[in-house]
Amino acid sequence: MALKIVITGGAGFLGSSLARALLQRGTATGPDGKMTEIGELVLIDLVPAAIEDRRVRSIVVKGLSPDALEAALGRDTDSVFHLAAVVSAAAEADFDLGMTVNLDGIRAVLETCRKLPRPPRLVFTSSIAVFGGALPALVPDGAAATPTNSYGAQKAIGELLVADYARKGFIDGRALRLPTIVVRPGRPNKAASSFASGMLREPLNGEESICPISRDTKVWILSPRRAVAALIGAHDMAPERWGPRAALNLNGLSVTVGEMAAALERVAGPTVAGRIKWQPDPALQTIVGGWPGDFEARRAAALGFTPDPDMDSIIRAHIEDHLPGGPR
Amino acid sequence: MALKIVITGGAGFLGSSLARALLQRGTATGPDGKMTEIGELVLIDLVPAAIEDRRVRSIVVKGLSPDALEAALGRDTDSVFHLAAVVSAAAEADFDLGMTVNLDGIRAVLETCRKLPRPPRLVFTSSIAVFGGALPALVPDGAAATPTNSYGAQKAIGELLVADYARKGFIDGRALRLPTIVVRPGRPNKAASSFASGMLREPLNGEESICPISRDTKVWILSPRRAVAALIGAHDMAPERWGPRAALNLNGLSVTVGEMAAALERVAGPTVAGRIKWQPDPALQTIVGGWPGDFEARRAAALGFTPDPDMDSIIRAHIEDHLPGGPR
Repeated sequence: MALKIVITGGAGFLGSSLARALLQRGTATGPDGKMTEIGELVLIDLVPAAIEDRRVRSIVVKGLSPDALEAALGRDTDSVFHLAAVVSAAAEADFDLGMTVNLDGIRAVLETCRKLPRPPRLVFTSSIAVFGGALPALVPDGAAATPTNSYGAQKAIGELLVADYARKGFIDGRALRLPTIVVRPGRPNKAASSFASGMLREPLNGEESICPISRDTKVWILSPRRAVAALIGAHDMAPERWGPRAALNLNGLSVTVGEMAAALERVAGPTVAGRIKWQPDPALQTIVGGWPGDFEARRAAALGFTPDPDMDSIIRAHIEDHLPGGPR
Repeated sequence: MALKIVITGGAGFLGSSLARALLQRGTATGPDGKMTEIGELVLIDLVPAAIEDRRVRSIVVKGLSPDALEAALGRDTDSVFHLAAVVSAAAEADFDLGMTVNLDGIRAVLETCRKLPRPPRLVFTSSIAVFGGALPALVPDGAAATPTNSYGAQKAIGELLVADYARKGFIDGRALRLPTIVVRPGRPNKAASSFASGMLREPLNGEESICPISRDTKVWILSPRRAVAALIGAHDMAPERWGPRAALNLNGLSVTVGEMAAALERVAGPTVAGRIKWQPDPALQTIVGGWPGDFEARRAAALGFTPDPDMDSIIRAHIEDHLPGGPR
């Protein structure tokens, strides 16, 4: 039997990158633990997915209601990647919207999964935003989630739910705490971390970019390529290898904002790097500065996940994937 | 202005003990931080509260619905103690019931509090059941919540919600992770920890008691007197002293089940202690053995909370409070 895989947020940047990678691969681990052909890829989102492929079904929903999810999952879904979320600054600005999408959303996904005849694999994208406040400079794997924004609180709650549904045998669940994804293509979004991509992406496109965060702020980042590989790797891993802890601190690269700018200059030259304008924003600095900038991430390394080797290669990969003519 | 205080689960053992202590005291910290007379004490529960006092209003509800809570809190509630919960073994046996009462319940309480004209104080009873699995023998204050049962997961989620509502300024919130309360009066309940009281209480009442847990199992306990004092102490503490972390590992006493039996023999004699029958229950042993038996609880000590001095005094206090004629 060919696999049916569902991606919530499947029309978003990470969701569609994941979809393309799965389609290109053509296979994923099936319920029997064996590599199996992907027969159907269902992409749920607020807008249609822009992928043409006979295996893709794009479903436009108004929200993650139980009805919409039941219609999308049917009775034969093998795996779900739950990526749909309201991002950090938006969830902070509109508390109720964040609770509805980020908390009621994962509950609806979990309840729909629980009703399937066979417990599906569920990969949930959590975030390092579950951490905040007073923390060691190098965050250990066993550190408590201490979110200092609503997005992080909602993600931490989602992790607890995924872990408990998995423990009860309702799903085979895994939660990945993603580092900040850099370089995200497209336009800025309402995530407090949006600057980290914008300060590289816009200058490479010939545009000025405002960096609201100080040069000495450390960030924990991962390229889109590695993030997609990690999501697929987490999905394909045997449950006994993943172990009882649902949430994993994924391993990333610890760099300062200043080092990111220096890498941009090395890879693309001083004209490009000169397009970064430094304009401190105290509100954003408080949020981003509250996120830890470095993690031990030993469990992720032991499970075989690999971070990007350095900042320069992250920028070069972005140029390869999105700027066929090179930087402007 | 006299205070209006609401206790959910106010007809239960801990809720009514707390109510009696508040009534006897007559005052609590008000919104201005000053000791203020308690004018009204609203006890919400599935059954009527058995306390006669002109200040008490007992409200019987079918569940913690937003409507019921809004009616109970009105517009003038100053403080809420949220104690209502489905206990551990019951939440494990009926997953949906646990989610409804323990998760939807705290959400309804928080939303009702948020709508009040002035953010109320909220004291939420969490539990050491948020911990489980592989943990250090002495659990540090910063250890991650790793629940291994649904009750613990729901309490951990409640803590995250209380913390985020407090951070947003919707409430002034505090969550206490209570140790196992010993000796609970009354009859056994469906909590996996029920044995810890039963093995002392029933023999003191002249009855046999089955202990399903092995003698070498360590438990982390607190007497009802100290638990009530801690709830009131947490309520009365200034928010800046409590600090940004909502959840506190309350300090208790670490004893083995065998030491509890030995204390019973010292306090009440060998005839009484001989009424304990040892009948291992692997399912309960797995749950209780998964809870850590010892905690650093440094923050609780620094905040001035004090545990019981020893096991013997816990048993003597139970005899004083509930067995006026002494052990049978």
